[in-house]
Amino acid sequence: MPGAETSTESRRSPKWEARRQAIVDTSARLFARQGSHATGITELCAANGLGKGALYHYIGSKEELLAAIHDRVMDEVITGAGRVAQAGGSPSVQLAMLGDELLDVIHRYPDHVWVFLHEFHALTGGRIDQFRGRRREYERQVEAILRAGVDSGEFRDIDPWLTARAWLGMHNYTYLWLQAGGRVSARDVAKPFADIFLRGIQT
Amino acid sequence: MPGAETSTESRRSPKWEARRQAIVDTSARLFARQGSHATGITELCAANGLGKGALYHYIGSKEELLAAIHDRVMDEVITGAGRVAQAGGSPSVQLAMLGDELLDVIHRYPDHVWVFLHEFHALTGGRIDQFRGRRREYERQVEAILRAGVDSGEFRDIDPWLTARAWLGMHNYTYLWLQAGGRVSARDVAKPFADIFLRGIQT
Repeated sequence: MPGAETSTESRRSPKWEARRQAIVDTSARLFARQGSHATGITELCAANGLGKGALYHYIGSKEELLAAIHDRVMDEVITGAGRVAQAGGSPSVQLAMLGDELLDVIHRYPDHVWVFLHEFHALTGGRIDQFRGRRREYERQVEAILRAGVDSGEFRDIDPWLTARAWLGMHNYTYLWLQAGGRVSARDVAKPFADIFLRGIQT
Repeated sequence: MPGAETSTESRRSPKWEARRQAIVDTSARLFARQGSHATGITELCAANGLGKGALYHYIGSKEELLAAIHDRVMDEVITGAGRVAQAGGSPSVQLAMLGDELLDVIHRYPDHVWVFLHEFHALTGGRIDQFRGRRREYERQVEAILRAGVDSGEFRDIDPWLTARAWLGMHNYTYLWLQAGGRVSARDVAKPFADIFLRGIQT
């Protein structure tokens, strides 16, 4: 059976990577419309204009494809969070920047985010642990910013864990209606959301 | 094929209704764990301790079961919203009460809410329209409360549509971690969430 271990000369070349990424994006759209379980390999082949052998050459397996969709979102989210940490600033500024970055990813990848939030349980073994670890790392950054704000007296005496969940829900849930080409841009949303949230927790 | 039209003498008796409700709840747990598409009729039979004929007698079809899970949540959400409208009070009081009611439903039915938020696309035809209509009715109530608050000067000049999405995301997303028997109760969450949100939008 073709799988993750398949290797050819062209694998990992820039052209191979670009083609693989396009397949990941097309497949994410299909999964977001009907769920990964309901989407067969035959359908994935048709949507990507590839035969089975060629599809496996790029994605390894359906599960590897699912992991690649998760990574595509998580890589961007973590990169954005890194920029925020790098930039520094007050907890309020950091939280607003983090919201900006998160909504930008959701806006650009609504299908991937759908898969990310709905198909998480379809990942197995080491992949689910790795994914959980990265998600937890991000949540911890949100909690740390909130805790820093409480410690400095900038924020009220809120519970950082619970408040982080409020913030994450408010932002993540936008994947349902915030779409590239839609009537509102990520920036249109980020500013009023930051206004509500920061006024809500500032002293 | 057995379906929604199946009818017997005992159908709709209180005993039949109670048994059907128990089947809906057990099946919601199964769907929430692995998705409705991945859950076969055989598995549903085993989980409910029923043969195929008996299962169909109670649920009609898998799609009818899915609709029943949606209704179970939506009925409660709409009933709670009705209580809020009945009670009246300022927009701030109404919004806090609505959050109380919503988190109480999510806390009591985390599996149903999971199905409600993830398997929505698995509904078809008239069922999806009916469900969309009821969801829209609820969203309109949130928007109306926000608009009333802006009009009376109690809330800042916020966008009711966008602000309703922020509120819904913050509350709905709790289904991921707010569980009956968990370390936090619905009330533990409702109060700080209302504090954040109301401070965030009040003038």
